[in-house]
Amino acid sequence: MGWAIELERTASPKKKPKVSELGFGKYFTDHMFIMNYDGGQGWHHPRIVPYQPISLDPAAKVFHYGQTVFEGLKAYRTAEGGIRLFRPSKNLQRLNLSNDRLSIPEIDEQLFLEALMSLVRVDSDWIPGEPETSLYIRPYVIATEPLLGVSPSQQYLFMIIMSPVGSYYAEGINPVSIHVESHYVRAVEGGVGTAKTAGNYAAGLKAQEGASAKGYTQVLWLDGVHRRYVEEVGSMNVFFKLGDKVVTPALNGSFLAGITRDSAIQLLRHWGIEVEERPIPIDELVEACRSGELKEAFGTGTAAVISPIGELSYKDEKLVIGGGETGPLSKRLYDTLTGIQYGREKDPFGWMVEL
Amino acid sequence: MGWAIELERTASPKKKPKVSELGFGKYFTDHMFIMNYDGGQGWHHPRIVPYQPISLDPAAKVFHYGQTVFEGLKAYRTAEGGIRLFRPSKNLQRLNLSNDRLSIPEIDEQLFLEALMSLVRVDSDWIPGEPETSLYIRPYVIATEPLLGVSPSQQYLFMIIMSPVGSYYAEGINPVSIHVESHYVRAVEGGVGTAKTAGNYAAGLKAQEGASAKGYTQVLWLDGVHRRYVEEVGSMNVFFKLGDKVVTPALNGSFLAGITRDSAIQLLRHWGIEVEERPIPIDELVEACRSGELKEAFGTGTAAVISPIGELSYKDEKLVIGGGETGPLSKRLYDTLTGIQYGREKDPFGWMVEL
Repeated sequence: MGWAIELERTASPKKKPKVSELGFGKYFTDHMFIMNYDGGQGWHHPRIVPYQPISLDPAAKVFHYGQTVFEGLKAYRTAEGGIRLFRPSKNLQRLNLSNDRLSIPEIDEQLFLEALMSLVRVDSDWIPGEPETSLYIRPYVIATEPLLGVSPSQQYLFMIIMSPVGSYYAEGINPVSIHVESHYVRAVEGGVGTAKTAGNYAAGLKAQEGASAKGYTQVLWLDGVHRRYVEEVGSMNVFFKLGDKVVTPALNGSFLAGITRDSAIQLLRHWGIEVEERPIPIDELVEACRSGELKEAFGTGTAAVISPIGELSYKDEKLVIGGGETGPLSKRLYDTLTGIQYGREKDPFGWMVEL
Repeated sequence: MGWAIELERTASPKKKPKVSELGFGKYFTDHMFIMNYDGGQGWHHPRIVPYQPISLDPAAKVFHYGQTVFEGLKAYRTAEGGIRLFRPSKNLQRLNLSNDRLSIPEIDEQLFLEALMSLVRVDSDWIPGEPETSLYIRPYVIATEPLLGVSPSQQYLFMIIMSPVGSYYAEGINPVSIHVESHYVRAVEGGVGTAKTAGNYAAGLKAQEGASAKGYTQVLWLDGVHRRYVEEVGSMNVFFKLGDKVVTPALNGSFLAGITRDSAIQLLRHWGIEVEERPIPIDELVEACRSGELKEAFGTGTAAVISPIGELSYKDEKLVIGGGETGPLSKRLYDTLTGIQYGREKDPFGWMVEL
């Protein structure tokens, strides 16, 4: 195919932040990718330009009706100086699934991949090389038509921005404590919970604030129908080690099908560990924690990779998991996944794409 | 109190559209209101400036995590040339309820009202005087902090834009046909369904598209837990006349507490008509339609006022309501509400605020 992606280089490269100051999503690279959609014309004018503000009509639909989707992936620098992406085709596919759910026109996956690779190449000196750091890549689509009727937009922007990042949580690989949310609900089957769309994240802020005020890092969401089955933790998928096997909520149409989730399941099964994808009642976990059968718990996601859970609070009970320490399986998954991503370990599934 | 709202008048007023071309939310007036929020500083710098694009960092949180709320109300021109707002205090209060649910800092209601009144005054020549026309007012808040962590923004814009409008639906006061949605869900108790926030509207687009493709104007949403109780129609509240009484879904925490809904209930009760607010199973409506007990159905909302429903499609059944015509009660409500709004009728509840 070969799409002609225009490139306008910045005349004034920014000063790069110190690695110790990176945090998550605070600093952005020198360039960004941008492409327009107009009804009748389709997606057009793909280009890489200096990172800069975007100018929108105050009536742009994204501000009013939230028609927007996004993705998140990372570029890693290997010890040899190589640059790699982790399963980018999964992100391309998922963005289009989200697009479909939000009535946004499909984006050509080949063009998307070319845009991604080209942008990473242009800003490759922004990929940090220190342990646990990477370049976080944020593709997203926003509806820009200036019209207040509630209907799918006839104009969009597809953009990719990039941010050099450290750990998502201040805790790093140390265990986080989680509040089981029994009042607020994030999403429900039949809704947009499986799409990576802005509204799902806005819907979680209030519960997150409440949990933070009580000293918890994240919220464990229960399903919106029975308020009984665990769904995900914050914006990560969640796994529990019960005895010798691992259980994780089955994809049910109300939470995101995480790429790290899928990778963790593949790795666990590759190691001969039984993984059950099924509905998990919160009372089963409470009971398993009391009886000592709940050995480990962890969240999975692109930003946090593997995030061990050391404590759950449910109603008035505090449940300490695995002595509040990072369990051996969580550690092994974290080490293996990051090992594959940074090129320190073999890549048995062919997940990495070299630039 | 007295807030100092700066005013910068446009040097190049726009040409006003013809009344026949108005539609809904397509044209915007010469000015807009804007105010900033910054963490530590609070809301500051309220100002009226020429309507113009806004410039945002591509990482602004509204694009990624949908932290945004809005309101909708109208200014009406009376036959005598006066200008009136309909129950604006309800919108001020509801915006702050939405703000609270979305973790957005509260806005002083006195300042909000002053901003609203001042902006309407500045652009008063944009309020059309023809029947069924008005000036639609859209206050909204967007999160603007350029940071990709999922947490409440430390920066916001509060804006008010205005659009001269005709009928929301092409049908005007003529009955619309409605598809009862049994696959997709809009919102669920515990979620953000009661807040006027962008994500709720994005969540409805896909079902709306499906209904449009089948020739229906709107979707009737069922509850997300049982998929059985009616919630709202499109983005309007919904009422049914069963025999001599009127029923409407009780506020249950998963749909918006409409101001037109509240006004319709007050008017109906004022007329001595019994109104029940309660859960309404869809099968009860189907049965009542078959037996002829379902006399009328209508939606209520600021944009559409009263929108009669002439036909419901549920699964494979087509249910014609009131012979597909606008029923007498729907017509009376429409005439009375618009009569009060345009000053043709007495205002027994003191709803109107004169400018």
